[in-house]
Amino acid sequence: MKKLINSPENVVREELEGIQLAHGDIVRVSFDPFYVARKDAPIKGKVGLVSGGGSGHEPMHGGFVGLGMLDAACPGHVFTSPTPDQMFEASKAVNGGAGILHIVKNYTGDVMNFDLAADMLREEKIDVASVLTDDDVAVQDSLYTAGRRGVGLTVLMEKLLGAAAEKGMDLAQLKALGDSIRATGRSMGMALTPCTVPHAGKPSFELGENEMEVGIGIHGEPGRKRVSLASADEITQMLMEPILSDLPFKSGESIILFVNGMGGTPLIELYIVYRRAAQIAEKHGLKIVRNLVGSYITSLEMAGTSITVLRANDNLISLWDAPVKTAGLRWGI
Amino acid sequence: MKKLINSPENVVREELEGIQLAHGDIVRVSFDPFYVARKDAPIKGKVGLVSGGGSGHEPMHGGFVGLGMLDAACPGHVFTSPTPDQMFEASKAVNGGAGILHIVKNYTGDVMNFDLAADMLREEKIDVASVLTDDDVAVQDSLYTAGRRGVGLTVLMEKLLGAAAEKGMDLAQLKALGDSIRATGRSMGMALTPCTVPHAGKPSFELGENEMEVGIGIHGEPGRKRVSLASADEITQMLMEPILSDLPFKSGESIILFVNGMGGTPLIELYIVYRRAAQIAEKHGLKIVRNLVGSYITSLEMAGTSITVLRANDNLISLWDAPVKTAGLRWGI
Repeated sequence: MKKLINSPENVVREELEGIQLAHGDIVRVSFDPFYVARKDAPIKGKVGLVSGGGSGHEPMHGGFVGLGMLDAACPGHVFTSPTPDQMFEASKAVNGGAGILHIVKNYTGDVMNFDLAADMLREEKIDVASVLTDDDVAVQDSLYTAGRRGVGLTVLMEKLLGAAAEKGMDLAQLKALGDSIRATGRSMGMALTPCTVPHAGKPSFELGENEMEVGIGIHGEPGRKRVSLASADEITQMLMEPILSDLPFKSGESIILFVNGMGGTPLIELYIVYRRAAQIAEKHGLKIVRNLVGSYITSLEMAGTSITVLRANDNLISLWDAPVKTAGLRWGI
Repeated sequence: MKKLINSPENVVREELEGIQLAHGDIVRVSFDPFYVARKDAPIKGKVGLVSGGGSGHEPMHGGFVGLGMLDAACPGHVFTSPTPDQMFEASKAVNGGAGILHIVKNYTGDVMNFDLAADMLREEKIDVASVLTDDDVAVQDSLYTAGRRGVGLTVLMEKLLGAAAEKGMDLAQLKALGDSIRATGRSMGMALTPCTVPHAGKPSFELGENEMEVGIGIHGEPGRKRVSLASADEITQMLMEPILSDLPFKSGESIILFVNGMGGTPLIELYIVYRRAAQIAEKHGLKIVRNLVGSYITSLEMAGTSITVLRANDNLISLWDAPVKTAGLRWGI
């Protein structure tokens, strides 16, 4: 196992120590239990946005804590849900009195634990709502989910709701906005290579020298099909077609297009995928009004890509353009 | 060869098409010859900053074109110097009448071609100066250089000179500032895995399952030593010790600390390296006043890291904090 780590059991703790040292101007890290909070939280009168999930998807979620995105993020062990007490403590720490919104990717463990944490918070008379992402069109149920998996849309969700919370939206409005984003965003991903969870020490699955997995999940869960290697243009078509036909996205609509790297894919390849995705979108009569290209929701060192398409309107564009200052995404301030 | 490409010969062209489609608000791409220029260039009265080098190191350099960094970047084929006519045309395209500064990594082909381009520009009565980076302490001469290789410091150089040019510094002042940055920044890198140049189709070198290469260059050139795998803390020590003792950096000094990923290394590992690098810097009595953690100067999908340390002062900190709006680095606007 070739990794820049000291020991599998200390990966998350030492990563968090690095984040605290590098980004102490933006965040503070709690080590018992693990969470990353905005340095200036709680912010009185602002809804606190809290997300979390297994580690190994960096910069998501810890890298999205800061002005204009999350108030706190709870990292579990690699590819393992965080615990309810992490979510409870993180939510309490960033509660500014206007309630807490949990942003939850649809995985059985995450959903259950955020539910438990919400119950604990309600017992303390803290208002809680939650928004789910389940944007992956590849499979209906999967190894770790009932229903679709939450993937790339989560990044856009955290950006957009973060901006809306910053502007003073209340909990009910944020929940409604989140649900509408959930309803109008779709994703699909693929992998060229597997990844290795540190405490497992070997790849979570095998892919032959001429094989790739289309429709894969962000933990290397099986996708739609294992097929022979194809060109970037063909792969992009294999992802875009199911995404566009699922909602469906209709000619004349505006979209935000997000081409994501799985962790081990160089940026030069992501632009080749973006090129084809943009051409396909245009052929469908879609207008790309904003975009994001880079590795923002990853699967350790997996090579591959995912594409997310979100229906856009003037309100979402204005939220997208709002300032953000986090370790993983930054503009406008 | 597992890559998201269509054909080796079209990698750079299609990447540039993707950049044009994704970042048309910031840059315009020339396809004959290849270069990426600021959309708003030339800017009258501002020195034009132009860099370039082989492709495969993305986001460097094309991703650093825009407000507060470069005016233009010339991408060669993967790991191959761009040609003098690219540099000449890019420089002319962004010439606002205050001269052109070339930022050149110390590789034989790059140096020679930028020299030829400078001669061509002088024949057109355009003032040209150039700043070299040769910050890699690993080896004195190398496969592709007389003298040290230019590596991670180039990213900081482009950020800092870009801010200074934006503030109105003239060509001689920028050249002097660049030379002082060159004199006070040092880097070293290592690789866990090799990378594959698309038109070669196989890895440029081999590393055994329990081996790593310390002191490697950004094209996979051999480094100081091939040794057994070590822990992240040990690896960080192997990089930091030669960097700190080379200049040397002295107790009480302020520094900018940059932990870079080689392309295939997940962010979670880079923070583990940053953690140890910061601890070592502190033990040496150095004060980290700014930092950067991420994959900014890469070697395709190579797994590994490099560390750059630059002596800082109030002037550099103010230039570091100045706004930047490029595809690869963005803040403040």
